[in-house]
Amino acid sequence: MLDEAETSTPLPVIDPGGWVCPLPLRDSPTIVMAHGGGGAMSGELIEYLFLPAFGAAAQAELGDAAVVEVGDVRLAFSTDSFVVKPLVFPGGTIGELAVNGTVNDLAMVGARPLVLSTAFILEEGTELAEIARVAEALGTAAGAAGVKLVTGDTKVVDAGHGDGVFINTAGIGVVPDGVDIRPQRARPGDIVLISGDIGVHGIAVMSCREGLQFGTTVLSDTAPLNGLVAAVLATGADVHVLRDPTRGGVAATLNEIAKVAEVGVRLDERLLPIPDGVRDACGLLGLDPLYVANEGKAVAFVAPEDADRVLAAMRAHPLGSRAAIIGECVADHPGMVVARTALGGTRVVDLPAGEQLPRIC
Amino acid sequence: MLDEAETSTPLPVIDPGGWVCPLPLRDSPTIVMAHGGGGAMSGELIEYLFLPAFGAAAQAELGDAAVVEVGDVRLAFSTDSFVVKPLVFPGGTIGELAVNGTVNDLAMVGARPLVLSTAFILEEGTELAEIARVAEALGTAAGAAGVKLVTGDTKVVDAGHGDGVFINTAGIGVVPDGVDIRPQRARPGDIVLISGDIGVHGIAVMSCREGLQFGTTVLSDTAPLNGLVAAVLATGADVHVLRDPTRGGVAATLNEIAKVAEVGVRLDERLLPIPDGVRDACGLLGLDPLYVANEGKAVAFVAPEDADRVLAAMRAHPLGSRAAIIGECVADHPGMVVARTALGGTRVVDLPAGEQLPRIC
Repeated sequence: MLDEAETSTPLPVIDPGGWVCPLPLRDSPTIVMAHGGGGAMSGELIEYLFLPAFGAAAQAELGDAAVVEVGDVRLAFSTDSFVVKPLVFPGGTIGELAVNGTVNDLAMVGARPLVLSTAFILEEGTELAEIARVAEALGTAAGAAGVKLVTGDTKVVDAGHGDGVFINTAGIGVVPDGVDIRPQRARPGDIVLISGDIGVHGIAVMSCREGLQFGTTVLSDTAPLNGLVAAVLATGADVHVLRDPTRGGVAATLNEIAKVAEVGVRLDERLLPIPDGVRDACGLLGLDPLYVANEGKAVAFVAPEDADRVLAAMRAHPLGSRAAIIGECVADHPGMVVARTALGGTRVVDLPAGEQLPRIC
Repeated sequence: MLDEAETSTPLPVIDPGGWVCPLPLRDSPTIVMAHGGGGAMSGELIEYLFLPAFGAAAQAELGDAAVVEVGDVRLAFSTDSFVVKPLVFPGGTIGELAVNGTVNDLAMVGARPLVLSTAFILEEGTELAEIARVAEALGTAAGAAGVKLVTGDTKVVDAGHGDGVFINTAGIGVVPDGVDIRPQRARPGDIVLISGDIGVHGIAVMSCREGLQFGTTVLSDTAPLNGLVAAVLATGADVHVLRDPTRGGVAATLNEIAKVAEVGVRLDERLLPIPDGVRDACGLLGLDPLYVANEGKAVAFVAPEDADRVLAAMRAHPLGSRAAIIGECVADHPGMVVARTALGGTRVVDLPAGEQLPRIC
């Protein structure tokens, strides 16, 4: 019945020898965790593998959110998969992350998010109750963000070939007329703001990962930023750049902006809003808060004359009460981020290779 | 440093006892492979778990593609994750599936697909060459379908917690004015057509799965159907329903339409286009071709007066040369699909519980 001698279709095979990896940072011909960390190796995977492989079908730059003109409407379109471990952590679950992550990517181009898709990859053997819990969190988060869940998909993989629940969301938003927010618009003189405390999500997830439990009460900052962004735009300020500093933290985000816009960024470490719990945990673990992931914060670059009203608008919003000016955009050292330290020295804030702890979102 | 006695944040826990699964078909409180098969158990997971959990944030019905009005444009929006095993099979790879699956979901509401997002979940240790191969296939398929890849995401999971490459795509299309294609529009008297040979994708994947190699040359039918659909719509025919019969095959698709539209469907088995390779393989494996997955076929319900020109338009298209009329829509037995057999008898074509072979797409 199943006679190998009768096989007449030679199966296509993948020949790893037929393709040479051009990734400058590789030390192996295979995927390593750092490729998913949102840092240099993630960027190289896109630049040297995905974009050349996709060819002419890909837009020049696969950004966090694309702006697509359809008729006379400018749509924002974004996607993110979520593989955070554990599924439930202090302050949230993968469900909130899946909504807020995509909502925030849309908000970072100034869009008003409208609808989300949800696609679950479930591992055989996962408790239905666990899935219901994260699905409820997802639904509640969608309600809070004001987006509708309109289409979805469910796949199941065999036990041992997934990890409980992976969720992908994609989202569509509308970019209001006159709004043009993108990294390329950063320019020397811009003031750099952050909408609140940094490093919170990363520390919250680390605090319950693999037995790392320490005496901290840090809860994830996962939150939808579309309301805060709308409040900022309502001031009439000319916002040049918005980005949510997730994987790789503020350091990775500022480095990406500096590189894309060919500008320098000068931070003042003394101005960074860092809660005690994050500072303590980072001290214990030897981490730099600038590299720790956030899930409910925005970095903004605005013209200097607009900085005060943007700061005031952020602080007047419930999610921005701890907003601060943290630095400026300069013509010196294009592509580079430097920080003035508490002792008055200066250090380079490099793009991380990967994430300090993987699977943070 | 990591003193458990100092832990002051009680971690949220998932309490499987706190939620009672109402799935009528469950025989365990956990996910089983059949929940991902596109049949009855997939439908129940959506109806009894996801929709109640999502609550008010969810649209009444999470269909394959949603139609969303933005300004005066009607957008189609769809998502699918792809977990096919193996990644490369006769006639295609996960890359082509990821493009064509979402393009086809958009085409099945009559939309012209415009842009796709791509999100990869990569397993640590996967060969970069393997990823490049499927990414190239994905790019080529996008070019063939006429869609642009505009935004993306990459996550990495630890070895043993994924399976090489999972891909999610979401897509946006535009529904032309006057087009209204949805399962609810099926009505008694409609003629049911299929755009070509059935069962091909499923048999192609099965033929190389886990050593199942038999003497067949069946290649996957993965293909973008937007061109064929545009050709059908250009005839001016009033197309009531289009669906691509993927997981669960033609049987699952027709059952879903019959249930949603509260109509009966009467097939004639003698009219089903089944290639010899599929018929032979199904005979050997004890499968019914009606339940085997397709990735490049459309089922259409059209008014009787339009059937001939729709059939002619399909046959004139390169992907529709084997199109056929296979049955009709009736007022009898609403929600039920019956087939007239080759011997002249009649049998009920039930909704499958799951898929005959999991991870087919």
